[in-house]
Amino acid sequence: MRVVVVGGVAGGMSAATRMRRLDESAEIVVFERGPEVSYANCGLPYYVGGTIADRSSLLLQTPASLHRRFRLDVRVRHEVVRIDTATKSLDVVDLDTGLRSTEAYDKLILAPGARPRRDEPTSTIPTLSLRTVDDADRIHRALVHAAVPVVVVGGGYTGLEAVENLVARGARVTLVQRGGQLLSPLDVEMAAPIAAAVRERGVDVRLGAQIARIEDGAVILDDGTAIPAELVIDASGVVPESQLAVDAGLRIGETGGIWVDETCRTSDPDVLAVGDGVEKQELIAGESTLVTMAGLANRHGRMVADIIAGRAETARPALGTGIVKVFDIVAAKAGWSEKQLRAAGREFYIVHVHPVSHAGYYPGAETLSMKLLADPASDRILGAQIVGRDGVDKRIDVIATAMHAGLPAAELAQLELAYAPQFGSAKDAVNFLGYVAENTRTGTTPTVQWHELDAALASGATLVDVRTASEFAAGAIPGAVNVPLDELREHIDELPGGPLVVHCQVGLRGHLATRILTQRGLAVRNLDGGYRTWRDGTAAS
Amino acid sequence: MRVVVVGGVAGGMSAATRMRRLDESAEIVVFERGPEVSYANCGLPYYVGGTIADRSSLLLQTPASLHRRFRLDVRVRHEVVRIDTATKSLDVVDLDTGLRSTEAYDKLILAPGARPRRDEPTSTIPTLSLRTVDDADRIHRALVHAAVPVVVVGGGYTGLEAVENLVARGARVTLVQRGGQLLSPLDVEMAAPIAAAVRERGVDVRLGAQIARIEDGAVILDDGTAIPAELVIDASGVVPESQLAVDAGLRIGETGGIWVDETCRTSDPDVLAVGDGVEKQELIAGESTLVTMAGLANRHGRMVADIIAGRAETARPALGTGIVKVFDIVAAKAGWSEKQLRAAGREFYIVHVHPVSHAGYYPGAETLSMKLLADPASDRILGAQIVGRDGVDKRIDVIATAMHAGLPAAELAQLELAYAPQFGSAKDAVNFLGYVAENTRTGTTPTVQWHELDAALASGATLVDVRTASEFAAGAIPGAVNVPLDELREHIDELPGGPLVVHCQVGLRGHLATRILTQRGLAVRNLDGGYRTWRDGTAAS
Repeated sequence: MRVVVVGGVAGGMSAATRMRRLDESAEIVVFERGPEVSYANCGLPYYVGGTIADRSSLLLQTPASLHRRFRLDVRVRHEVVRIDTATKSLDVVDLDTGLRSTEAYDKLILAPGARPRRDEPTSTIPTLSLRTVDDADRIHRALVHAAVPVVVVGGGYTGLEAVENLVARGARVTLVQRGGQLLSPLDVEMAAPIAAAVRERGVDVRLGAQIARIEDGAVILDDGTAIPAELVIDASGVVPESQLAVDAGLRIGETGGIWVDETCRTSDPDVLAVGDGVEKQELIAGESTLVTMAGLANRHGRMVADIIAGRAETARPALGTGIVKVFDIVAAKAGWSEKQLRAAGREFYIVHVHPVSHAGYYPGAETLSMKLLADPASDRILGAQIVGRDGVDKRIDVIATAMHAGLPAAELAQLELAYAPQFGSAKDAVNFLGYVAENTRTGTTPTVQWHELDAALASGATLVDVRTASEFAAGAIPGAVNVPLDELREHIDELPGGPLVVHCQVGLRGHLATRILTQRGLAVRNLDGGYRTWRDGTAAS
Repeated sequence: MRVVVVGGVAGGMSAATRMRRLDESAEIVVFERGPEVSYANCGLPYYVGGTIADRSSLLLQTPASLHRRFRLDVRVRHEVVRIDTATKSLDVVDLDTGLRSTEAYDKLILAPGARPRRDEPTSTIPTLSLRTVDDADRIHRALVHAAVPVVVVGGGYTGLEAVENLVARGARVTLVQRGGQLLSPLDVEMAAPIAAAVRERGVDVRLGAQIARIEDGAVILDDGTAIPAELVIDASGVVPESQLAVDAGLRIGETGGIWVDETCRTSDPDVLAVGDGVEKQELIAGESTLVTMAGLANRHGRMVADIIAGRAETARPALGTGIVKVFDIVAAKAGWSEKQLRAAGREFYIVHVHPVSHAGYYPGAETLSMKLLADPASDRILGAQIVGRDGVDKRIDVIATAMHAGLPAAELAQLELAYAPQFGSAKDAVNFLGYVAENTRTGTTPTVQWHELDAALASGATLVDVRTASEFAAGAIPGAVNVPLDELREHIDELPGGPLVVHCQVGLRGHLATRILTQRGLAVRNLDGGYRTWRDGTAAS
């Protein structure tokens, strides 16, 4: 059997090596357009920034090492330019010699990846992406002196990693983001602390801005602002490299990615496809989507080898789990955001909590901001977002595992997680999130969201701040009256008769106040996530 | 309604505060024998060691603060000495005045906790446990000068935390452990690196040793060795404080803990019980067990308030998830160990892997040692153990969540965990564990365990070390022949015809070698976990 793989990075190389492990006798050929295979693309920003000092540590394998260990026939700088599914053959151009040849396959695995969405602008300023070792090398070389002015376009995962590492190299960085917030997979109140942390490091963050044109030495925004730039990093997004599949007559999905079934077979059963060039089914609504994550590419790459070897495997629906660290802040998500659910007209309830990353009595505990979205009827978890400094990765992984398994939101309270004071709390942050979810869904404590507060107050509700007098004095929501929780029972008769909204700093004392007042017959709701979520949300809006 | 709580630390106080949140009108009385309520008992070792500098940070609440916020009637230094379930009353002694009174209850919540297993030895050397603030204060005071000789009895979670913190205070520490390994919830090959790490810090670790007697200035072991000691810390285990329940005629389980049903009701429906004094149902075999973990105490405490308030809740079976950090090594487990499964006659298969805590190309990646035990028929996960320096807590929490949800071992490979190079790998350690589990269970790569190797070699198998020549030279398993993996295909004809065992450093190259050789028709098994697991296991045996 001759198996041909097009694309030799994450998904393609996972497929080729697993294929060998399952079949010593197969002939396995890998064509890669670029000069390197199997490089650590998620490490590229850190090579630019200097955290990864040794360029060779990015290069995980070479054609020679892959031949020695796996007997793979890896041909770099070979571009596949045409696939003929009728004759099961493809045309390949050797980019060094220009020679064109035809290669036969029994099974073909496409792992073409994605390319930057933007066309190369005509500009005298270098405009680079950060997807290949060559990109990273060129950025490295462009940072020729201290304080090189650089514009990064796009405030997503890659853009934020680029910003951190350019700052580490001493560059003067402007981050231009089309939308009104950074990290658009998150909701606005969750993303707000990220913009604040990035600005704190001296980065000029321009939200709601687009590049109109690039001039010599400057990027001109659509509002006319000229930003000095000697280098532009394009992290504005990618599109699937699907042209080869299009030309071959393979089915393309509505997203523009190569269509595949749950075994990663394309519309031609002898052609399988994986990675950023392929559309996936996602978990929440079963929709087709583009998720450009290395983990999925690797997993599906391995799976197509299993499929070719005759094993019964299917791809699991994608959660879209993602994480990014920028300076000392970490943000992560899984599933859908509130704005996605709202746009899709889905029913959902929301929980914001701000627990500590480990026992508060042990040094180094940091506050986490967590948001959970769940279905009010089934309690199915629809999405989670976490922002903090420590312990973010652990909590998103636990919630992603719960989502994968279909655990309801309230069941998060029941997880028996490992507790020692360095790592968590007797009630871990995830347990706490589950308890608050249950209190919210069952109506034990009705809540109001930060973006619903104005409407609630406009319709006559009174806002009661149950924090201490000193917290109130240090910054309060306009219109709030201050009745500290520990004095609330004595002052109930002084509260107005109409509906109440109570709040504290993070939501816990507000919950206690809501319980006290509800049992006295008052109509009361707790401001979900407290002052902190309200402050983050309103600051960003 | 009058709710009386006996015991005011983790479980009791969770019950009392949740009770108030659900019922503003209930009268809630808490009796606590000690001088403090709601203290951070898991923080006590770190107060002794100085990591927690401020003693007051251990004291999370006071009777006054609990009255202000929750209207609880908390009476410290009040010992409940008798319960009369017929009249629904109890006798209480005020330990300061000696006055005895009788208190009525509608619902009674017992949270008596556990006490050290050993009787107080008659000795001139102070022998202290580490369960109360008073214990910690006394240890603090006993460390009067540098290099105080201290004997810690018991190498479990608490003993190891005590050791670390005594060393931090400059004490000369000997750790005496009855069994042949530290941290008995783990299997011997997993625990071996912990003993090594502790010894590296100058601690005299005595395994398989018991204390015969304590003399003036010395502890005498059963082999006659005299160990100088000015202080003995007893961390040899605890037993449930069940006498009050026994005397009240409540049912006691076979474990010696108070028997409760899945709602934490005792044999008297108006008496509920939670925490270390109570036996729990565990997940793997549904057996009754004693698990003394703060998380369960808190969770069940909260639940009994829900039960009393008429909510339908049930306790989930306990996983026994645990974690401990000692110096720079972290060890964690969930579910059952190999020795437990073996003793119970259960069918199981074993996987050892040693992946990195995050992408190897990013600085700071540390090797994790992971062990998984699963049912060969159903693939149900029966237990997991993880030892390492970074990322241990995350992986045990993900696996505990998977176990809670009933995910099979192979499904660990499918979890979509968050990947950025600081936090994990495109194939996370947990994914990798799932892949190896699948390869093992399906027979894709048959394995042999470190403790089965001698028998395999004795019955005629040849051991082939597929590491490089320099790895082989640096330390090899006796009797192994060295054929580096990348040269294996050329040397297949030179291998003996009989059964083979192959191995590498951690198991991955051995897996590749097994795949190559199996497909050539040879009878071959891979040494699970490679040289590293074999070395840890044999060093400890």
